[in-house]
Amino acid sequence: MNSLFANRIGKIHRSFVTEILSVTENPEVISFAGGLPNSVFFPVREIAEAATKVLREDGPGVLQYTTTQGYLPLRQYIADRYRRKYDLDADPADIIITNGSQQAFDLIGKVLIDPGDRLVLERPAYHGALQAFSLYEADFIQVPLLEDGLDVEALEQALSAGPAKLFYTVPNFQNPSGLSYSLRKRKQVADALHSHNLLLVEDDPYGEIRFEGEDLPPIKKFLPDNAVLLGTFSKTVAPGFRLGWAWAGREITEALVEAKQAADFHSDHFAQRVMHRYLADNDLDAHIALLKSAYRKQRDFMLSVIEKYVPEGVRYTRPNGGMFVYMTLPEGASTLKLFETAAKRNVAFVPGVAFHAGGHGGGNSLRLSFSSSDEAQTEEGMKRLGAAIEELLAERR
Amino acid sequence: MNSLFANRIGKIHRSFVTEILSVTENPEVISFAGGLPNSVFFPVREIAEAATKVLREDGPGVLQYTTTQGYLPLRQYIADRYRRKYDLDADPADIIITNGSQQAFDLIGKVLIDPGDRLVLERPAYHGALQAFSLYEADFIQVPLLEDGLDVEALEQALSAGPAKLFYTVPNFQNPSGLSYSLRKRKQVADALHSHNLLLVEDDPYGEIRFEGEDLPPIKKFLPDNAVLLGTFSKTVAPGFRLGWAWAGREITEALVEAKQAADFHSDHFAQRVMHRYLADNDLDAHIALLKSAYRKQRDFMLSVIEKYVPEGVRYTRPNGGMFVYMTLPEGASTLKLFETAAKRNVAFVPGVAFHAGGHGGGNSLRLSFSSSDEAQTEEGMKRLGAAIEELLAERR
Repeated sequence: MNSLFANRIGKIHRSFVTEILSVTENPEVISFAGGLPNSVFFPVREIAEAATKVLREDGPGVLQYTTTQGYLPLRQYIADRYRRKYDLDADPADIIITNGSQQAFDLIGKVLIDPGDRLVLERPAYHGALQAFSLYEADFIQVPLLEDGLDVEALEQALSAGPAKLFYTVPNFQNPSGLSYSLRKRKQVADALHSHNLLLVEDDPYGEIRFEGEDLPPIKKFLPDNAVLLGTFSKTVAPGFRLGWAWAGREITEALVEAKQAADFHSDHFAQRVMHRYLADNDLDAHIALLKSAYRKQRDFMLSVIEKYVPEGVRYTRPNGGMFVYMTLPEGASTLKLFETAAKRNVAFVPGVAFHAGGHGGGNSLRLSFSSSDEAQTEEGMKRLGAAIEELLAERR
Repeated sequence: MNSLFANRIGKIHRSFVTEILSVTENPEVISFAGGLPNSVFFPVREIAEAATKVLREDGPGVLQYTTTQGYLPLRQYIADRYRRKYDLDADPADIIITNGSQQAFDLIGKVLIDPGDRLVLERPAYHGALQAFSLYEADFIQVPLLEDGLDVEALEQALSAGPAKLFYTVPNFQNPSGLSYSLRKRKQVADALHSHNLLLVEDDPYGEIRFEGEDLPPIKKFLPDNAVLLGTFSKTVAPGFRLGWAWAGREITEALVEAKQAADFHSDHFAQRVMHRYLADNDLDAHIALLKSAYRKQRDFMLSVIEKYVPEGVRYTRPNGGMFVYMTLPEGASTLKLFETAAKRNVAFVPGVAFHAGGHGGGNSLRLSFSSSDEAQTEEGMKRLGAAIEELLAERR
């Protein structure tokens, strides 16, 4: 980059998403790379009815500018749902509507992160958050995820090593690992953060999409005064609207609102009104029940074809919800190399380095999405991927 | 602010918009403060038809994630319109869809501005741009606007004094001044920027809303290789969608796309598709002709009541388009003080300090919007404002 660009731009590694898109644009390619919800289940008819209704009832109003913080009845709906589901005391005045959780990362970065600030993330970590926080020139410390959630001892060590700005986590069916925190781990993490007075940034896009076990409360429940909880309608309703939210303490909320005003005034007002109308006129829980049952089947099918086509010695997670399976090849095998072999066989995934700061780590792992391919595609794709893995491992013998 | 917040947050002066909103929330108040288009003219029926149509034709598609750069046919429409109106050679690959021009400011700040970089702006300058660029800790140099556009001599002096990162301008019916650049001034400014190799950031939300005189080409026409041209559908169609664009060179466009991916993935896909459908199925020029005729009448009426109620010694601009009149009281009169007097009389405006970096300057000026009040409101509001000005000036005698 020449001197025209700001220094922070050097921190953008040309994103994996962009690289991967160039492969998946080929219609011959079966892609397990995307994190797309299955569009078959979008409530198209209900959204159309909601759009017609809000335009008929208040057309000039819904097409006009609105307040930066977002449509109050929509924020009220979100607050009410937290109360009903988890007995959490959410005030709409502490909720800001954002363009998906991704914008919440950006606004959090803008109001909280100075260059060189240390952020604690999971290992592996969601690449979208890594990407957003990178632009604020943060330093990253990644703490391993175990089967039942974060390695709390490693967290304690990391926090004892020096001050940090925040801890970012996806506690339910994490992207990319598919792993979830047990109730015990949620409490332990809250305690650790409390004792170090560290801000929790809890990102929960998938918590509603649990196929097995009981819903668990957000970590914020055990750390109410020092947490930002992020949510989104992208996985439960539809992602195209770009509607998510952040629920924070008052002081941080006010800073996020000021930053959002400078960033884009407000999220699409029409979309907020349509979403609110959809939620008011329909039973979201019934819709989510349908999603859960569908995604559960898709997960089961993917696990069955992994069993069938992927060689021994390859480990993988068995998520109880969400959209992702994380696969780990034997030590030393490169999933970046595998990506190229697989691309030749017309199948794609996201290499594990994407989920590691600076691309350091995760070299033998990869993420698979089971949400957006049908059974025939999933079987054929896994057959190809299994063969590509065989080939890669054979070369190493 | 405590140490939780990033240093850049100290740069946000609690925005005037927020302060003013607390006054204008009172329904008794007649507000000339907002920059709202008149919602009476929003094409509600046509938008409803477009929404129904895109959901019927491709419901799952329009509710799914899409590419960061934006819906290609919408970018193509924008490129075609530049070609048709100004014979400009726009390539959709160099256009990115943003959440209004405001997001373009934010992304430009993110990819171009390092703390301490000098930016050249107009005096007065659009406060939304000041607000966005402030968060990247830029230093501002403001060059006076004259009746026919920028003071080019003052620009040359500013550029000779030291290196700058970019020049930001609103050449048509500027917010807040209502002033426009003559064709001659456009060429002179392009020449000056060219000789100093300075990037032009040209913001043109109001260019389509000209009531008098001939449309003039963007300054970018005379500086094609070193300019970012911003546009928006907020003033021509409806602002609630938050749909604007930036047309830049390839290298800057690519950086803006990477930054937008980190900021929010993409603008509302549904809104982009509805907007494109609306534009494809309707005659935008006919709609704009209606807006022009309506806003022209509103401007004429506001000028007539200013003439009637505002005391002598107060100067004001006579814009040929757009939505704003800028008023200047005698030297030494404070429009911040006037704001309080006027608030007691239930009328509001934006004090001139909002358009000056750090609030330095513009102390005796104010912005009035004529777009969103009807004749009865405008007359009553100006009667109140005139009386408030009388009172303020009488105190100074």
